Amino acid sequence: MARTGRRPGPSTTRAALLEAARRRFAAGGYGGTSMRAIAADAGVDPAVALHFFGSKDGLFRAAVGWPFDPAPVAARLAEVDPADLGPTMARLFLGFWDDPSTGASLSALLRSAMTHEASAALLRAFVGQQLFGRISHLVGGPAAALRVDLAAAQLIGVAVLRHVLRVEPIASASTEELVGWLAPALTTYLGSRDSPEATP
Amino acid sequence: MARTGRRPGPSTTRAALLEAARRRFAAGGYGGTSMRAIAADAGVDPAVALHFFGSKDGLFRAAVGWPFDPAPVAARLAEVDPADLGPTMARLFLGFWDDPSTGASLSALLRSAMTHEASAALLRAFVGQQLFGRISHLVGGPAAALRVDLAAAQLIGVAVLRHVLRVEPIASASTEELVGWLAPALTTYLGSRDSPEATP
Repeated sequence: MARTGRRPGPSTTRAALLEAARRRFAAGGYGGTSMRAIAADAGVDPAVALHFFGSKDGLFRAAVGWPFDPAPVAARLAEVDPADLGPTMARLFLGFWDDPSTGASLSALLRSAMTHEASAALLRAFVGQQLFGRISHLVGGPAAALRVDLAAAQLIGVAVLRHVLRVEPIASASTEELVGWLAPALTTYLGSRDSPEATP
Repeated sequence: MARTGRRPGPSTTRAALLEAARRRFAAGGYGGTSMRAIAADAGVDPAVALHFFGSKDGLFRAAVGWPFDPAPVAARLAEVDPADLGPTMARLFLGFWDDPSTGASLSALLRSAMTHEASAALLRAFVGQQLFGRISHLVGGPAAALRVDLAAAQLIGVAVLRHVLRVEPIASASTEELVGWLAPALTTYLGSRDSPEATP
C-alpha cells in the first residue's frame, strides 16, 4: 500500500508512547525515566504524552497495566483517624483485589513481578514511591517504613492465598469477615510508635 | 551399546519413582494418590518406594522439591505454650526462608504455584493437610482454619516482599526484629477464640 503522507492517528501515537515507555521504564526504572525521553523516543512532543496519559504516573500505569490511580487512595488514607488506618487499608486493598476489573490486573502484575526481576524492579519503585512512601509518611516514627512493609506483607499474603492460590477457607470468606480479623493485626503495625520486644 | 540384562540400578529406580510420583500427584492430587499406584507405575514393589522415600509424604516432598519435613515442625508447635504459637511460627518460618539451602526451594515452589494451577493444587493439598490442618487443630475454635490462613498469609507475604520482590527495608531487616513485630500480629489470630467486630 502506498504511503498517504498523513500524520499517524491517535491510536498509533498512543501505542508508540506505550512501547517507548515500557522500554524506557525497563531500562531506567520508574524514578530514572522522564516523560520527555519517552516522548522523544516515540517521536512526539512531551505535551502529546501528557495529553494522552496525564502524568508520568498515568503513563507508567498504562504501560504496565496497573489498574488504579494510587493518589486518591493515599489521599483517602490521609483523611482517616490514625486508629482506622489498618481497617481502611484492608478494606481498600481487598476491594481492589475482590473486584474482577482490577483484581485480574493486580494478580497478573504480582505473578509477573515474582517471576521476572525487571518487572519486580519496576513495581518496587512505583509502589514504593506512590503507595508505601506516602503511607509511611502518615504512619511516622523511626520504623515507619518497616511497619508499612509488614502491613503490606499481610495484605499481599491474603491476596496470594485468597486470589492466586485459592486456599480455603480464606478464598471464600467475606470481605467484612476478613477486615474484622485484619484490622487489629494491621493496627499492631500502624497504630503504635515503638518497636515491641521479641518474645522467645 | 548392547543391553546387559542387569536389573536397573538404585538411581534409575529412584528416578522412575519420582517421575511416576509427579505424574500421579499431578493427576490425582496429594490426597488421591497412593504409594502403591506410584510403585506400580514405576514397576517396583511398594516396599521399594518406602525404602527410598520413607512415606508418601517423603516421596511427595522429593517429587516437588519441598525442602523440609513438616512433621517435626508441627510437633514443635504442639509443644509450645499457646501464647507462644505466633512467635514460634514466625521464627520457624523465617528460619526456613532465610536459610538459602531451604529458602531457594520454597521460593521456587511459591513461584511455580503462583503461575501453574497444577502446582498450586498440589501444594494446596500437601500444605493444607501437613501444616495448616495440624496448626488449626492446635489453635481450635470455630474459625481456626481461617485464622491459620490469615497467620500464614502474613508470613507468606513477608516471604514475598523480603525474598522474592526484595522490597526494602523488610528485605534487610534482622530475623529477630521481624519476629518482634510479627509476634503480636500473629497472636491476634492464633491467641484469641472469638471473631472480632469489623470496625468501620
